[in-house]
Amino acid sequence: MLHFDSDYMEGAHPAIIERLAQTNFDQTPGYGTDPVCESARARICYACQTPDAAVHFLVGGTQANAAVIDQLLNPWEGVIAADTGHINGHEAGAVEACGHKILQIPHRNGKLDAQDVRAFCQAWAEGESREHVVAPGVVYISQATEYGTLYTLGELQALRAVCDEFDMRLFIDGARLGYALAALEGQLTLPQLAEVADAFYIGGTKVGALFGEAVVFTKPELAGHFFTLMKKHGALLAKGRMLGLQFDVLFEDAEERDGNPAARADASQRNADVSQHGADTAGSPLVEAARTRYLACGRHAVKLARKLAEGFEGAGYELAIDSPTNQQFVAIDDRTCERLREHATFEVWERRADGKLVVRFVTSWATRPEAVDELLALL
Amino acid sequence: MLHFDSDYMEGAHPAIIERLAQTNFDQTPGYGTDPVCESARARICYACQTPDAAVHFLVGGTQANAAVIDQLLNPWEGVIAADTGHINGHEAGAVEACGHKILQIPHRNGKLDAQDVRAFCQAWAEGESREHVVAPGVVYISQATEYGTLYTLGELQALRAVCDEFDMRLFIDGARLGYALAALEGQLTLPQLAEVADAFYIGGTKVGALFGEAVVFTKPELAGHFFTLMKKHGALLAKGRMLGLQFDVLFEDAEERDGNPAARADASQRNADVSQHGADTAGSPLVEAARTRYLACGRHAVKLARKLAEGFEGAGYELAIDSPTNQQFVAIDDRTCERLREHATFEVWERRADGKLVVRFVTSWATRPEAVDELLALL
Amino acid sequence: MLHFDSDYMEGAHPAIIERLAQTNFDQTPGYGTDPVCESARARICYACQTPDAAVHFLVGGTQANAAVIDQLLNPWEGVIAADTGHINGHEAGAVEACGHKILQIPHRNGKLDAQDVRAFCQAWAEGESREHVVAPGVVYISQATEYGTLYTLGELQALRAVCDEFDMRLFIDGARLGYALAALEGQLTLPQLAEVADAFYIGGTKVGALFGEAVVFTKPELAGHFFTLMKKHGALLAKGRMLGLQFDVLFEDAEERDGNPAARADASQRNADVSQHGADTAGSPLVEAARTRYLACGRHAVKLARKLAEGFEGAGYELAIDSPTNQQFVAIDDRTCERLREHATFEVWERRADGKLVVRFVTSWATRPEAVDELLALL
Amino acid sequence: MLHFDSDYMEGAHPAIIERLAQTNFDQTPGYGTDPVCESARARICYACQTPDAAVHFLVGGTQANAAVIDQLLNPWEGVIAADTGHINGHEAGAVEACGHKILQIPHRNGKLDAQDVRAFCQAWAEGESREHVVAPGVVYISQATEYGTLYTLGELQALRAVCDEFDMRLFIDGARLGYALAALEGQLTLPQLAEVADAFYIGGTKVGALFGEAVVFTKPELAGHFFTLMKKHGALLAKGRMLGLQFDVLFEDAEERDGNPAARADASQRNADVSQHGADTAGSPLVEAARTRYLACGRHAVKLARKLAEGFEGAGYELAIDSPTNQQFVAIDDRTCERLREHATFEVWERRADGKLVVRFVTSWATRPEAVDELLALL
Repeated sequence: MLHFDSDYMEGAHPAIIERLAQTNFDQTPGYGTDPVCESARARICYACQTPDAAVHFLVGGTQANAAVIDQLLNPWEGVIAADTGHINGHEAGAVEACGHKILQIPHRNGKLDAQDVRAFCQAWAEGESREHVVAPGVVYISQATEYGTLYTLGELQALRAVCDEFDMRLFIDGARLGYALAALEGQLTLPQLAEVADAFYIGGTKVGALFGEAVVFTKPELAGHFFTLMKKHGALLAKGRMLGLQFDVLFEDAEERDGNPAARADASQRNADVSQHGADTAGSPLVEAARTRYLACGRHAVKLARKLAEGFEGAGYELAIDSPTNQQFVAIDDRTCERLREHATFEVWERRADGKLVVRFVTSWATRPEAVDELLALL
Repeated sequence: MLHFDSDYMEGAHPAIIERLAQTNFDQTPGYGTDPVCESARARICYACQTPDAAVHFLVGGTQANAAVIDQLLNPWEGVIAADTGHINGHEAGAVEACGHKILQIPHRNGKLDAQDVRAFCQAWAEGESREHVVAPGVVYISQATEYGTLYTLGELQALRAVCDEFDMRLFIDGARLGYALAALEGQLTLPQLAEVADAFYIGGTKVGALFGEAVVFTKPELAGHFFTLMKKHGALLAKGRMLGLQFDVLFEDAEERDGNPAARADASQRNADVSQHGADTAGSPLVEAARTRYLACGRHAVKLARKLAEGFEGAGYELAIDSPTNQQFVAIDDRTCERLREHATFEVWERRADGKLVVRFVTSWATRPEAVDELLALL
Repeated sequence: MLHFDSDYMEGAHPAIIERLAQTNFDQTPGYGTDPVCESARARICYACQTPDAAVHFLVGGTQANAAVIDQLLNPWEGVIAADTGHINGHEAGAVEACGHKILQIPHRNGKLDAQDVRAFCQAWAEGESREHVVAPGVVYISQATEYGTLYTLGELQALRAVCDEFDMRLFIDGARLGYALAALEGQLTLPQLAEVADAFYIGGTKVGALFGEAVVFTKPELAGHFFTLMKKHGALLAKGRMLGLQFDVLFEDAEERDGNPAARADASQRNADVSQHGADTAGSPLVEAARTRYLACGRHAVKLARKLAEGFEGAGYELAIDSPTNQQFVAIDDRTCERLREHATFEVWERRADGKLVVRFVTSWATRPEAVDELLALL
Repeated sequence: MLHFDSDYMEGAHPAIIERLAQTNFDQTPGYGTDPVCESARARICYACQTPDAAVHFLVGGTQANAAVIDQLLNPWEGVIAADTGHINGHEAGAVEACGHKILQIPHRNGKLDAQDVRAFCQAWAEGESREHVVAPGVVYISQATEYGTLYTLGELQALRAVCDEFDMRLFIDGARLGYALAALEGQLTLPQLAEVADAFYIGGTKVGALFGEAVVFTKPELAGHFFTLMKKHGALLAKGRMLGLQFDVLFEDAEERDGNPAARADASQRNADVSQHGADTAGSPLVEAARTRYLACGRHAVKLARKLAEGFEGAGYELAIDSPTNQQFVAIDDRTCERLREHATFEVWERRADGKLVVRFVTSWATRPEAVDELLALL
């Protein structure tokens, strides 16, 4: 049986398992205050070119979303999201559980359009009963989105501008950020994404880790007391080292992996350079960030997803959504669905008005190329 | 440097790391719906002699406490706890974050006394303004307590009786349950504990796992929709298999480990027998539960903790709390504290009225016997 | 200056002020436990033909909505509402403040369509990730709606059927119930409305009272501990008698007012009759309910609103929404708006796609007929 | 039957009822944005000598407490209160319902001792796990307390100093402030109380109003968006004028009442003077504040309470608490209790260790002097 249900079916990148085994009996203090987490933070700050960012590690996406949004909102504010946003439709009310309203705006291909957000905020600002309703305080988007679609740099900057206009913070859910960055290589870098966001997270659970999301507050003044808030949310891992370890491995770069640790030198030292000389969002750091295991994981899945998409198209199938990432949506009829289900697992996304089923095939950092070949051979 | 800060400084039992590595590329569905979790659930149900219990795996103690209490309380009810209870003093308001009040009762050696609970409930029930105040709905205790002390079977039964009298549920925080069971061997078994509780959890984080707490609702009707509530709390792990795997390893029994898997046969089958013939809370299952890795982990730490305690006493030091578990509290003067700190890490618990410092030494499933010897040699 | 901004600009029905003055120095216990509240409850139960209903008095609509929804929902459930529902757009997140999600469905003329609700619930029930999302637990509607539109008896019954099908409770926000009942006289009675709802409230604030909403749980078993929950919500009035007094006055019937108190006899006695012989939803009680001051208040406003609407139409203006109640929505151009504003206050509702402004004129139980004449004379 | 149960058994000061009747058909905008509320705010600001304070009117004490504390706390903070504080024991968990923890400190005669608060905060600030626990953010006290006791000016200043030391805000629950000010005349003025507090409220419900508490944020920057938060709490009264009207009447001064409205001139103008020349916390404003109906209400009750206390003492009874305010606590035996109950209603507070019952007699602004005489005649 072939499995394309999701990108969290396997364990972790073997280098993570190896490091876990090697360091198993090390003794470190808890809650992410250990040197391994420090090292991972330094690597992440450098990869983002945000030397002063506050980086916190959480176990999963829903808790990261709820805790960060709780941190960024005032009690009279709510969070704007696409109606298809993960926090709105797939997290069992975790944001509302903290007492915050989600202000829904209809999506466009899974994305929030900056003009729609501006119109929403303007209507609020000019409304006669403005003080009687929830004020927009945070804009939440996912990169990649729940539909596998992507925000371009220009689209992100347009959202940033609306946020500045209405004094809102921009938070990017990066549960699948690795796949987004891989799909947008040459068009959007991690430092560029970090520059537009007030906070975002680098998803590990779906991109090479056993679990874990690295939340980056690019403006550390927005992260005050987030440690305590994580605890309040039940989102502070006792053996925090396990989270740091995974991101430390995922953000090692290629030369280091090739046995030349000096090549990377010390990330902390490099961050100091960035602090002094400013971020280099177009130059060498990008090249290096691109050499991390994290991006390598992303590339692997995206490459196989595209092969899979081309295979379906080549066999005469229609792609229901134009997704450049590791999620592919194909329109098929019921009989095909049944036939494929005998050999493969995948998710039925929805039934379209024309009666066809939209089904989703997901590749991951761990997908075997042969599995894609075997699937395509079934068509 | 020797480390006695806490019982979550190391990784996991080597058998867990080994199993992680072996099964890393297995593909399973998410959120604990996989066969590995099923197997772990069956083993736990059998070890507890509660074949029909609902077992859920969560990542950490604070989230387990908050989610279970939220599940068990009605909106007009609160949870009774000792003022020293972990939910009251060490979880950053996680219970209140769900809108629930903690009804504090002064502790006795870290424990709730059944008579004190009865008096509290009676005062509430007879109060003129009974409808104006939070009704007691759940009693929360920790076994072992935050002071390393233990409830005897009789004390647990007395609390159970008060709960029945006032229509409350009894919830036991078992973050250190492995150490409690080891310390109480011959006096309290897991099935006996399960019998008095409406819900409890078997702590993995501090007893052999990388992370993870197995919540057991002994009355499954109290666990309705807990899966959704876990998600709402951000407490549902995507790669749920990682939790199941750890408890599956920890609840393997000795014969199985000795290479005779048939010896344990299938836990599900055994549970069926229990369902049919009733639990055997005094017989063979206990023996077998006692043969699990989980209890072995507990025994190791307790044995070393006692050695440590005897060493301190032998050297003329005073034990500040009479703790039979893996936490030992010693009263020392400032100079001794300073001197020991040069060679060992440990927590300063409080300063006593007589000016002495109470410091805490914690052993774990992973503590090296030599480390205890080296510490005692410093006295 | 003429005022048509809202239906809460004036004080209260003079009979209420009179009773307040007469009974000002009476001494009664607090929190609604007094005989005046008892009398009001009996009158309301009789008017609804629900002798066993649990009736609670709250001060305002937002707190009534939040408290009742909090009472009716389980923690894993949410409340279905039209996107235009008052709880969704005009209450500053009061429902979310209790940790509950609002499940929005696009409105049809301000109303929820039973088929839309069924489709929503079916999609949820059949969804692959059903357990990962908020379960629908309550359906919230307003009668009259925020658009001044009305549910027919048939539409209410259709919603009731969907609620039964999916095990949901039906809650009706009756902030403007008096105007709805007046507009639907001959088509929908209070007992009929009570029969379809699990809970609803009879709005006083906008219909003759200084303040106050009478929440009716037609199934008292759903109201368990609501008194305590009211307190938790800060919604329990210390001098509860002031609420009971107002509803007691509003639900006096005509004969009683005409100086024949025996005509009404004792509402409690009549409730006992209903308990024994069943509700008479088509017969005399309706007549009597129709003779209350509450309905008289409603009729007054509806009559004037219709006159106002006819006046606008007669003068060639377009009614933007077909509203049979005390809110009238007229489409006008900017110049007319400016001109009218010199003589009258009213709310600008929205700007239509065709550039016209939709403005709202609201009449109340206290509107002077001359004021309507003067407004129409301006056209 | 005589009634000494509480201070909220009667209606309102007759001048309020009169004004209600006179202005009943006035039309004003809602939610406290009307001129009547403006006038009341100006009077209150002047009486407090805080010309720039933000004043909001809420209906009741529990909602005022919860909303203000929610406003003043950050999400990682909690509120310090005496264990006997009203928010802790008598409000059904309303503060916790907003997700905030109450940090309890044992009371001393119903009061918080500044040294106790300092010790608590110091322990927190120096604690090893400081970031794992709720940070103290607000100190809550009641003046008068739940035991009828009072804070002196010196005690309030000591608490203020602790708040400044640990960056906390001081919030005073003034449900019975009128009685406190009356009892402390010559020792503590309203401007002095306003000077030490960040926020407090002037209780109307128990001191002459039908309902209503005037929340005063002496530092208006702490009140940002409180209007919206009130709505979120369901604490925004639609016909806000009814609240303003009551406080406008209660804060009229004696000359104005004597038919010389010019004597008071315009409170707004006077506030402007204060803004320019500074508050005069020792001079004439105090005299004038002392001439308000609010203080007159307070004086009436306190005078009768003292007469009542003296009567009990004179008859050989023991006062269980030394209360200078309108609540008197007397220790009596069961037989006396039973005997008095035949003629009077009052609350049984608690049974003392010596077997005696402590019962509470409460006077109010509306208590008839004859009622006290009749009660004393029973002794």
